[in-house]
Amino acid sequence: MPPVSSSAKSVATRNDVARLAGVSTAVVSYVLNGSKRVSPQTAAKVHDAVAMLGYRPNQAARALRLGSPEMLGIVVPDATNAFFADLTHEVELAAEERGLALLTANADRSPERERRLVEKFVTRRVDGMLLSSTLAVPDARALVPGDVPFVLMNQFDDMPGVNTIGVNLFEGARLGVEHLASHGHRTVGLVSGITAGGDLDPREAGWRAAIEQQGLEPGPIVREPFTKPGGYAAGRWLIETNTLPRAMFVSSDQMAVGLLLALHESNIRVPDDVAIVSFDGTRDGEYSWPPLTSVSQPVRLMARAAVAVLVDGAPETSKQLFAPALVRRVSCGCGDHHRVSP
Amino acid sequence: MPPVSSSAKSVATRNDVARLAGVSTAVVSYVLNGSKRVSPQTAAKVHDAVAMLGYRPNQAARALRLGSPEMLGIVVPDATNAFFADLTHEVELAAEERGLALLTANADRSPERERRLVEKFVTRRVDGMLLSSTLAVPDARALVPGDVPFVLMNQFDDMPGVNTIGVNLFEGARLGVEHLASHGHRTVGLVSGITAGGDLDPREAGWRAAIEQQGLEPGPIVREPFTKPGGYAAGRWLIETNTLPRAMFVSSDQMAVGLLLALHESNIRVPDDVAIVSFDGTRDGEYSWPPLTSVSQPVRLMARAAVAVLVDGAPETSKQLFAPALVRRVSCGCGDHHRVSP
Repeated sequence: MPPVSSSAKSVATRNDVARLAGVSTAVVSYVLNGSKRVSPQTAAKVHDAVAMLGYRPNQAARALRLGSPEMLGIVVPDATNAFFADLTHEVELAAEERGLALLTANADRSPERERRLVEKFVTRRVDGMLLSSTLAVPDARALVPGDVPFVLMNQFDDMPGVNTIGVNLFEGARLGVEHLASHGHRTVGLVSGITAGGDLDPREAGWRAAIEQQGLEPGPIVREPFTKPGGYAAGRWLIETNTLPRAMFVSSDQMAVGLLLALHESNIRVPDDVAIVSFDGTRDGEYSWPPLTSVSQPVRLMARAAVAVLVDGAPETSKQLFAPALVRRVSCGCGDHHRVSP
Repeated sequence: MPPVSSSAKSVATRNDVARLAGVSTAVVSYVLNGSKRVSPQTAAKVHDAVAMLGYRPNQAARALRLGSPEMLGIVVPDATNAFFADLTHEVELAAEERGLALLTANADRSPERERRLVEKFVTRRVDGMLLSSTLAVPDARALVPGDVPFVLMNQFDDMPGVNTIGVNLFEGARLGVEHLASHGHRTVGLVSGITAGGDLDPREAGWRAAIEQQGLEPGPIVREPFTKPGGYAAGRWLIETNTLPRAMFVSSDQMAVGLLLALHESNIRVPDDVAIVSFDGTRDGEYSWPPLTSVSQPVRLMARAAVAVLVDGAPETSKQLFAPALVRRVSCGCGDHHRVSP
């Protein structure tokens, strides 16, 4: 699956940095590589120019020149979420193919903790950083020095000056709601995750677009954290307020697993009483009961793309948005998963 | 929960290494710290003596002397298993408290891959290593140079010359089977994981001991990989051969989740038709349907103990065996988890 869209921005070159700092391009290299001593004043001018222009030297060339053992770092918001466990593992494999090791860190959904972890990675001089951030993007960008290549994962929106990799969340939610409509449902609710910075999750816009395009009724919207307890809380709320619709789109497999527990506890059958389509396509949804029909993210392709951007360098700021795919299992009402008992 | 047992062996000192290599203790330090150049012949003699004696210098002192940024490495057999995801995260937190970063790697249950990963960590000069190994222990020991502190996690047996941390698997299985007996079951089967090197899993001995002590009938034993597909295969086999007993002890939550899927597919009810107690106490079992009664491992305590051994050094070879605890949920027949629907 190739990236379905990509946008390009012109980015700063070493010449631009030299011009702004008022030094030669050789001096820029000395400062960024630590290959010759320059005065602190000159170094400060170069660092300021790098930061102002968002300049990033070509990583492969830099690593070769230094001959150092290379190491990438990744910070995920929740390492115990199956999606991030998969993503981390795929990044590890992609890094390994390039002879790179991977430092991992878990922000536990705390922006404060993420900030500290990124600072630590910088201190440890990782050769490239992947953030799947709980931070607002400008905050993340400000934390990483201009000469450390970095990629924002799980990123849907345009981010000038930042390399991003993500899946088309809007399209994925649209796919999921359309599939529920194909089963004859006319009202579809939404269990949505609470996002960093309180921005509207693009899955919510995709859900709404499909509702309108298909002439459906919007069901209730519940917003909870992107976790199993979050999904469970959403389920309890829908049951207690007696607002549970006949079909729900759930923005993550983790939340759907929690929702299933709440439904089971109240003897509500899936898909007979409520049909569910969720998002992520993790193994958690393959082994839940019933197995979840889910909009799957191409984790391996995204991981490889991220490592490629860090190692090979992006010729310009790049946005890679991958296409999701619907995996049909049982929770939507497709097929009868029950086998005949011997 | 303190370690429930610990055994001590006398280990080699720097004096022993110096004597065997025929050099002074200062030369041993030069070689191990890289603090002065010595001839390749002398260095080889020291390294041979270190390997023969299994000598490990005190890590904290070594790191201080070098003043290097410190980094631990962990290799787990399956990073997508919730137990190892938890363990890795707890080790990360414990390491962070000591100002250490953590390199992680996933052996994907391949001894060949694990061997390569350990070698890479050694090349990268990690300051300490945690293995939760798929390798036979002597192989693992041989891979790690004598001057790199290492801890074997998930280790139950005595391993002379190696620091080990584990949970009492035998006792855990006994607890689980006894609990099923307390629900009135007289026949209890076993779903067991296939272990590295084909050794008998101590949980199998614990299951058997409880069967004998309680005067129960042993049910069928099925051995499959420690994964969700492995548990699913075990369930299919028990159903197809019509040998499914009324109660099962399952050696991991992952396998129990797979088993549940096979049972659901055949409309077999848990705990009404089959009662289940599993092992690990992960979040996967908290959100499965029904929620799993499981013998829980004290992951946080084990992670802290492992980091303490690596950083503070063990005064002698140490074996720390932690006590497991039964977490009662629904799959065993305890309570009625169904809430009243409003």
